[in-house]
Order: sequence, then C-alpha cells, then structure tokens
Amino acid sequence: MAEHPLLSHIQSPKDLKQLKEPELRQLCSEVRETLIETVAETGGHLSSNLGIVELTVALHWVFDTPHDQIVWDVGHQCYVHKLLTGRADRFHTLRREGGLTGFPCPQESEYDTFVVGHSSTAVSAANGMAKAKKLTGDDGYVIAVMGDGAMTGGMAYEGLSNAGRSKDRLIVILNDNRMSISRNVGFVARHLAALRSRPRYVRFKNGFGSVVAKIPLFGRGTYALLLKLKTKMKNALYKNSPIFEDMGFYYLGPVDGHNLSDLIRALKAARNIDRPVLLHVETVKGKGYGYAEQSPDTYHGVSGFDPLTGKTPPSGPSFSAVFGDTLCELAREDARICAITAAMQGGTGLSRFAAEFPQRFFDVGIAEEHAVTFASGLSRNGVLPVFAVYSTFLQRCYDQILNDTAILGQHIVLAVDRAGIVPDDGETHQGIFDVPFLYTIPGVTIYSPASFEELRIHLKQALYDVKGIAVVRYPKGEEFPVPEGYRPDYKPFTLFRGRNARILLVTYGRITFSVLEAAEQLAREGLPVSVLKLNRLRPIDPDCYRLARTFDRVLFFEEGSRIGGAGEHFGTGLTEAGYWGYYEIHAIDGFVPVCKAASGLRLCGLDTDSIREAVRAAERRPGSVSEKSEEAEGKDEAP
Amino acid sequence: MAEHPLLSHIQSPKDLKQLKEPELRQLCSEVRETLIETVAETGGHLSSNLGIVELTVALHWVFDTPHDQIVWDVGHQCYVHKLLTGRADRFHTLRREGGLTGFPCPQESEYDTFVVGHSSTAVSAANGMAKAKKLTGDDGYVIAVMGDGAMTGGMAYEGLSNAGRSKDRLIVILNDNRMSISRNVGFVARHLAALRSRPRYVRFKNGFGSVVAKIPLFGRGTYALLLKLKTKMKNALYKNSPIFEDMGFYYLGPVDGHNLSDLIRALKAARNIDRPVLLHVETVKGKGYGYAEQSPDTYHGVSGFDPLTGKTPPSGPSFSAVFGDTLCELAREDARICAITAAMQGGTGLSRFAAEFPQRFFDVGIAEEHAVTFASGLSRNGVLPVFAVYSTFLQRCYDQILNDTAILGQHIVLAVDRAGIVPDDGETHQGIFDVPFLYTIPGVTIYSPASFEELRIHLKQALYDVKGIAVVRYPKGEEFPVPEGYRPDYKPFTLFRGRNARILLVTYGRITFSVLEAAEQLAREGLPVSVLKLNRLRPIDPDCYRLARTFDRVLFFEEGSRIGGAGEHFGTGLTEAGYWGYYEIHAIDGFVPVCKAASGLRLCGLDTDSIREAVRAAERRPGSVSEKSEEAEGKDEAP
Repeated sequence: MAEHPLLSHIQSPKDLKQLKEPELRQLCSEVRETLIETVAETGGHLSSNLGIVELTVALHWVFDTPHDQIVWDVGHQCYVHKLLTGRADRFHTLRREGGLTGFPCPQESEYDTFVVGHSSTAVSAANGMAKAKKLTGDDGYVIAVMGDGAMTGGMAYEGLSNAGRSKDRLIVILNDNRMSISRNVGFVARHLAALRSRPRYVRFKNGFGSVVAKIPLFGRGTYALLLKLKTKMKNALYKNSPIFEDMGFYYLGPVDGHNLSDLIRALKAARNIDRPVLLHVETVKGKGYGYAEQSPDTYHGVSGFDPLTGKTPPSGPSFSAVFGDTLCELAREDARICAITAAMQGGTGLSRFAAEFPQRFFDVGIAEEHAVTFASGLSRNGVLPVFAVYSTFLQRCYDQILNDTAILGQHIVLAVDRAGIVPDDGETHQGIFDVPFLYTIPGVTIYSPASFEELRIHLKQALYDVKGIAVVRYPKGEEFPVPEGYRPDYKPFTLFRGRNARILLVTYGRITFSVLEAAEQLAREGLPVSVLKLNRLRPIDPDCYRLARTFDRVLFFEEGSRIGGAGEHFGTGLTEAGYWGYYEIHAIDGFVPVCKAASGLRLCGLDTDSIREAVRAAERRPGSVSEKSEEAEGKDEAP
Repeated sequence: MAEHPLLSHIQSPKDLKQLKEPELRQLCSEVRETLIETVAETGGHLSSNLGIVELTVALHWVFDTPHDQIVWDVGHQCYVHKLLTGRADRFHTLRREGGLTGFPCPQESEYDTFVVGHSSTAVSAANGMAKAKKLTGDDGYVIAVMGDGAMTGGMAYEGLSNAGRSKDRLIVILNDNRMSISRNVGFVARHLAALRSRPRYVRFKNGFGSVVAKIPLFGRGTYALLLKLKTKMKNALYKNSPIFEDMGFYYLGPVDGHNLSDLIRALKAARNIDRPVLLHVETVKGKGYGYAEQSPDTYHGVSGFDPLTGKTPPSGPSFSAVFGDTLCELAREDARICAITAAMQGGTGLSRFAAEFPQRFFDVGIAEEHAVTFASGLSRNGVLPVFAVYSTFLQRCYDQILNDTAILGQHIVLAVDRAGIVPDDGETHQGIFDVPFLYTIPGVTIYSPASFEELRIHLKQALYDVKGIAVVRYPKGEEFPVPEGYRPDYKPFTLFRGRNARILLVTYGRITFSVLEAAEQLAREGLPVSVLKLNRLRPIDPDCYRLARTFDRVLFFEEGSRIGGAGEHFGTGLTEAGYWGYYEIHAIDGFVPVCKAASGLRLCGLDTDSIREAVRAAERRPGSVSEKSEEAEGKDEAP
C-alpha cells in the first residue's frame, strides 16, 4: 500500500481547505492511487470515480460542505467525496457488509445528502433542497453533479426545466464523460458535442483567469462587481447553449475537468451568479489509469481486478448470459423478436444480440418509461418485444406497464434481471419489489425460474404461451447448485411430496433449492414435509390451493418483499379456498442493506438453516386444524 | 340541432377525401358546431378539440388512415377524429356509459391506435409503432400529435430523443396552443416562444406554397425532386430549432393551425421527408367559440354549459375544495407547509393556495416524477411538502416514492385526489390502484376519509402525526350523504356494533356510508352485522384483527382494485392472527370502463343493494367456524 501523506491527514473538508493549489494536485494523485488499490480489491465503480477526482477536490475546496450540499447523480461517483469527508480510513470496507456503502448514505455521513441510487433524479432533489434553504433563510448552496448519461433520462429534463425557473442557490454540474456517446443516445450526445466543439473553448481556457480573478471570492452577497464584469465574462464563458438557456440556467463551460485551476475558477464564478448555473465540465472516464482510460466500460462497474495488469476475473455463467443466448437462438427462428435495454446492454446479457441483430436491438438510454411504451407500440404493430431490465429499475415504469400496456392488452415480455437479493449495492438496488408491484397490474403473468434450464423454458413460454404482459424474473449471477435429479417443469407448479407430510412449504425462484435441502434434512430428522414450487407466480394455478388445503400447516418462503408479495396473495387464495389451517409467510421486511446474496438471504431468514428452523418452530405453534377444531367447540358455546 | 350537410355524409375518411379544399372549411364549421352542441350537453374537453379542428381534418385528408396511424397525446383531443371516422352519429353518446369514450379506444374503432390517457407517452408509442412498420415491411406513416403541455413531461424527451434517432416514417406534430405558458412552465414555453417569434414565419406563410406545390404528392418513394428542392425548402420552412435538430428531427414550422391550406401543404411536405419530422403547429385553444377563446381553461375539461351564454354550472362542494381550503388554513399557521401540483392547480383545489402563498406553491408541469423527488428534497431541508395529485397520475412516480423518499424516510404528504371510481373518463383515469401500489412501499401511512370532516382531520394527522410518507386519499366531487349522528374519529378505526352480530363488514372511504346503510337494512330484516371502518388503511391497527377474529364471518368491501388491495392485506393479517372463519373480499376486478360514480359502484357490487345482497349470500355459504369444526372432526380421522 503506497503512502498517502496528504490524504491520510484529511479528516474532513476543513483539512482540505488548508492545502494550497499545488498540493491539491498531489492529493489528486493520492486519491487516484487509493481508488485503484481499493476497487481492485472490493470491486465497484472505478472509471467514473477516476474521472471525477479533480472536480470533487475542487468542490470541497471551494464550497463550504456540509452547509453547502452536494447531490451526486448517479450516486456511485461519490467515492472521492467519501475519501475527503472523513472516511478514508474505512475506505477499504467499501461495499462490504457493515462497511461503507457504494452510494451516498445520509446515515453514514452528514456530507451525504441524498441517495440517488437511480439515475436522473438529482436535479429534482437539489431543486427541492435549494428551495427549502431559500424558504428557511439558509444561505447555503446546493450542487447537483450529474453525468451526461443521466441526461438521457426524462426526469432530468423535468428537474432542469423546473430548477431553472427558480432563483435559488443551485448549481448543476454536468459531468460530461461522454457516457451518452458510448450509449449512442442521440440527443444529449449531439448537443454536448456541439457545445464542446465551439471555438470559444480556447478563449475560455486562456482568457478566463484574468476575468474571474477579480470576482470577490467570499463576498457572496456582493454582485456589483460581478455585474460590471458580466459582459466580459459572458464573452469568455458563456457558450450559447439554447437548451440550458431556455431552461433558465446560466451556462458556463465547457471546462477541462482535470485542470484544477480552471475548475476552481469556474466554481467560484458559478457561486457568484445570481441564478441557477449549469457548469459543463468535461472529464475522461478512468482518468489516470491507462487500462481504464482505454476501456472505461470494463471498469465502470467491476467486481475486482489486478491493479498491475488491469486484468479482470473472467465472468462466469449467469442468468443474464443464459437469457441473452436463449434470446439469440429464438430470434434466429423468429424475425419478430426485438430486444430493448435501458443503457444496460452488457449487464442484461444482450451484447451478443446487439451484434447479431442490430436492426432489432434498441438501447434507449436511461429511459425505462420510454422503453415500455416503445415496446407496447412495437407490439401494437405485430412485433414481439423483450425489454430486459433490472428489477429495481423496472420500478420506474409502473404506469407505462399499467396504462400504456395492460389496458391495451399488448403482449410484451419483461425480462427482469437482478431479481431478489442483489449483492453489494444496498437498498436502492435490491430486486425485491417487482413481484408486489407487478402483481397489482391486471392480466400480468409472472414466471420465476430457479435454474438456467428453467429460464430457457419460461422465456419461451413468455414469448409464445402468454397473452398480455409476460414477466420472467431471475437473479443476478450464477444459479444455485441444482439438486441431482431435479427436473424443470413446463407446468405452472411442481409438487415434491414428502411421505405422510402434514406440512407444506411453498416457494419459488432460486431459493427453491434451499427449501428442498431443508426438506431433505427435516425428513431425515423425522419431520416429513412436502414442497410446492411455483413456476408461474401469477396467476397462481387454482390446483395449488386445492392441493395446499389438504395440509395442516402451510409455510410460504419468498425472496422478495412481504407486503403485497406472492406469499400474501397465496394466503388470500388459500383462505378463499376455505383453508383454515396454520399459514405463515417468510419474506423480506422493509429494505435490505449492502450484503452478499448468501448473507442477505441468511439475514432475511431464507437460507437452508433458517428455513429448517422456521419449519421446526412453526410445527410447535398452535393453529393446526385439530387445535382450531377444539377451539371451535369451546366457542360454539359462547354467546 | 343545426344541420350538417357535409359532416353527416362522412362515414369514414374516404368520404372526407372526396371533398375539395373549400368544402373542408365548411366541414370545419360543422364540426365546431357539433363539438359545442355536444360537449355543452355531455361535458368533456372542449377547448383543445376546438383548437384542433383544421389539423384533424387536414390529417385525415392528407394521410391514408387507418393504414397511416395517428396517436393523440393527450387522447382527449380526439373528438374531431372520432367525428371523422364513422362515429358522428353516435357522438351525442360521448362519455356516457355504453357510448363513445372520451379518449381513443382501439376496441371502438380501427382508427384509434393507442389510448394515451396519461400525457407525454405518444411519441414513445409512435416510435414503436413506426419501427414495427419498418421491420414488418409496412410503408405506412405513424403520426403523433402532442400538445405543448405534454412536452413538460420528461417522458416526451425520452420519446423524442429516441424517435429522432430512427429513420422511420414518423411525424410528430407539436400542437402548440400555449398550454405550457398558462402552466408557467419555463423551458417548453420559452423555446416555443423563441421559435414562434422568428421573422421567417412570414416567409414560410407567403413563400412556402410555391415550393411545396412541386413536391410529388403521392410519390412516397421518390425523394429525388425533394432533394433538389431541399435547400429552397429549408430556407422557407426550416427554423433553426437546436433542440429538435439535436434530437434528429427535421423541424418544420411554425404553421398556422387554423389555415387549412398551410396545414395541408406542410403535412404533404412532412410526408416526403426521408426522416422523422417535427411539425410545429400553432393553434388557439377554444378556436371559434368566443367564450372558450377568452377563457380556455374554463372549457378545458367542462361538465357541461349553456352554449348560448357560455355559462357553466356552479361547482358544488368537493373533497378537492375542502382539501385546498384546509391546507390554506394550516399554511397560515405553519410557514413550512408547501403545496405542489403537476399541472392540476384547479382540479386539485389549490387555486386559493396558489394565490395566497405564491412563494410556497409549485406547479411543476406534467412532471409527477419530479414532483415527488422535489418534495423529498424540500423535506430533506426541513420543509413540509404536500403534493396534491390524482390517484391515476400518482402511478407515474412509484419509483420516486419508493427510492427517493421511502428509503430516506422523508416526510412528505401525498394528497391523492380522484381516488376510487372516477366518473366519465374510463379505464385510464380510475383511481383504483393507489392503495395496492402504495401498500407495497415500506413505511407508508394511508388515510382514507369518508367525509369532508374526516378529510380535514386526516390531513392534519398526515402533516403532524406521521413519520415518512403520509397519504390521504379521497374521491372526486361531493361527499356521499353523511348519516345522522355519524362522528369522525381520530383513531385508526371505528367500530359500529350490531347487537348479537356474528358477521363483520370491513370497509373504508366513502362507501362506508353505503355499508352502514346496508347494515341498517339487514338489522331491520333480522340479520345483525357489525361494521368496522378503517380510517387508517396502512398500517392496519392490530386491534382490528383481534376484534375481527371474534366474528364467524368477515366481509371486506373496497372501492379499489382487489389484487394487492387493503382487503387482501386485511385477510392476510387476519389469517396470521389465527382467524379461521369465513372471509370474503368484494373489490374491483380489472379495469373499469366509462361510468358515473354511482353506476360504477353498482357495476362493481359496491352500492348499498349489492352490499346487502352480498351479506345475505355469504351468510348462506359454508365456512363458518362451526361448519369448519365439523369438517375438522371428519378430517382428523382421515389418514
């Protein structure tokens, strides 16, 4: 581990402010070394954080955090911010259970102001925070730092358009690392390219210093001098950006995001302008680490690597890859099949599809709402669209699924990746709400494969056997070890009978294998149970209830949120089918913090041991049919 | 009723195409008369339809519908389209049960291609539809007609940005009636104003005809001539619109939307340009009806009026007005209270608040996502935001409630108007999903007042007694007659005991009064029941279960969607509390078509008569405690 004489002495931004500009450059080097060393070990978002080192240092040097507040969009570009705000000594615990989270976290630090686990929301949040400051007489600034990729999401426009109308102390920094270009998303890429290419850029770099040097650095209230300088500054700084101008922002830039002096001057200027400012900063993803500069996407979100060689571990088999490969096979046979992603081509396993069927592949940017309605439009005219999307991001298009698709009865397939417990990212990225919210939408069909083979089967069923919205949901990464002799089923459910069993365990998805293992252990211990695996979660086949009501006790195990989950719906169906035995749901309550898949399942009581113990405990509790019958006899005599 | 010699002979757009241009003008007059006469009677959206008469006539005259497809955004501007596509004879049934719907409806006509009940979605849908045409070798056009108000929604940008990248036969018509100006929403208003004000407008109007006349009208494949004319045309037509240009659109306009000749020429030109076109059309809301031109907002959505005097019926008392007045009272005492609306100031009852507290009132445009995250930001810095929003539109910000607010634990109040059955607008506007989807979000508190007085109480509770997200949901319009002696309650539930009752009816919201009436009738008929009214729907007070499990039979009545609704959650809680009597939910299944509140409730079995009959029927069904006890005795002897 290299020594970091400057970084190691920064306990808070106050210490940072003691440094002179030349020392800041040294600090940036130390930060970069720390980033590379740590993320090589912990995994995480490297490229974007390497790109934002100088900007973060400059922000904390110029502004008065935490009184001034920074909102990071997307939050995963907050690592440098964490290093500078008293968390350098714990930085090696990044994305570890009980360690630092990979996103801003207000419970972790007063310097973390808003989570922003999902993209394109920071300007809206900052707009509210700045407005509240104005209303409560707080003279602090709120600074939203937004990647250009985040600008492909419609909510960014809602935020900018509204924030630009205010007169509050709000600065939006557009961290332009050309993410939107690699995503090939036209509008943002084109507009920013136009801004970047203008000749005034040179004038800004060369002529700006002398102008801004005259601006009073700490006289926040004194705009008199600024007003005099305004015309001159405008010539130096103001590149006519009709979009941001129409939005009401004072546009500054573009600024070289790796030139500390330019950045500091620009930030000071922004602080002295009497209305919302949009500061356009150009950065290089992966800056300072050759491998990452060359292929920033590889190190965007990485699970660890060798810092010397840059080598990343080979990616193993995954549900995403099985999905992508299966879809390619099917698309070769069926020209109607299209694939859609919202800026997650690699993550959803669609890279091969994109290469093989470029005409039928659509990366729409970070625009999940558009993705669904676009899919519905495709379906309307006879095409078979498959939108591959992470469970947590699907939350963003509830209305589009309901109103633009379900009401019309359009057939679209939602391939819901990262369903269930998602490792390392914490609350904002868990895939535990898709079953509850999709369940509320009339006519939706949901499949939940436990294995790769089942994913292949259910994807075909979703494409060809279902009318309306068909969902196939599957977890991140590898399948859990498939028990010997386990056979996937085309039927809506599979029953594993335990001899003389009076207890039924109901479940779905990958934890089926844990439930089966627990069942085996219980059988060996003399407590036989049966296991009902739901292949199709919605609608639940009525035979399931007929079957379940023959048992004394029914326990439902669910890798998903309890309230509104499949367990609750199963319980309702069971009650309506006249069941009156013991019923218990084991599912996830509330939000789940950073964890690994295995530890998260243990935390939620959904690993093999917890399942076995839950059955043991339930067996001892009152509420079986015979107990209730006794209770009833007593009750009948009551008034 | 005036005679309409031209309109009455138009059975389909084929008939329209037989007319010459001068006759089209006469047709437009007849259409306007019909619109005014009919909407005066039926109620509905008048101003926007009066503004779009010439544009709709020109569209059907130039394009080959239904092969070419029109998508209306928002769909309520489709009345003229309905009149021209074989539905003039049924137009008097507009927004009546079993009649024509007030929105495009594919089941109603092959000319209706997509519903678009919620704003800003048409370009995304049209993008998909045009792409599907391209992929399937269909040479038709897809035309999205979008109001400038719809451009304040972020999804419009997602749609435009993606659609502009395609090479498909897609035309977006921006129907600019300055809606975004009356909404005071900066960005769109500013940009369109800039486009409108440019001097070339005159050149377009005067010099355009001679250019376009040379473009082959039906030679869709022949772009050769067009290419030659391109430069000349560009000078005449192309107003440099950096936004639409950056989005990849060929921008045409602005065109006078009430000049048929200009419109027809512009549409023909748009049809011959080899990439997506954005045609900017200026229209006047309420055009041709003086009263509506003078105050378009009054006639935007109107419940009927006197066509001669323009007088609209006085608006009676309503939950919205009570909400608005109460919030004003509270805001006078508490400077932290802010109000937010997404372009529904009048509808949500906030006009008085807006006038009295302009600094604390925010109309964010049709941007529900922004509204919630903005509210969360306000709350983050100590302000008390209340977002007043229709239930159906709240569907658009599920992720913002969950991810930007609930995870952070921010205290915001959602005042959910138009909850339950909403009259006249049909499937897309029913407020029946808010309870199911809000229920899935950890930590949400939901109140459901039945009367004005309860709304006042629960709004205060939501503001001051709740941590995290507090929801108060209430229906459109007046309260149902409050029974004599009925007293609102600050407690989470109210029990109305029936003497010796063995049946419990559980309910919430305005249908409580119907349930109580049914209970009274049943008592007179010798069947006593108790009624449990939930004032707080989430979380349900555990005492409710303790109370309910003493009954033989429990029936839940819910003015909301069944799946995931409060009835299911109550049933689950009851089962977990060890209840094993008879349980039955009466709620809404699937989507609800156009209806009045009373008839919708009857249709869903939630009026007094249906409730009484449901109890009668349930009483006769097996499943009471004693019956189950007998069953159990038999069962115990089974293997």
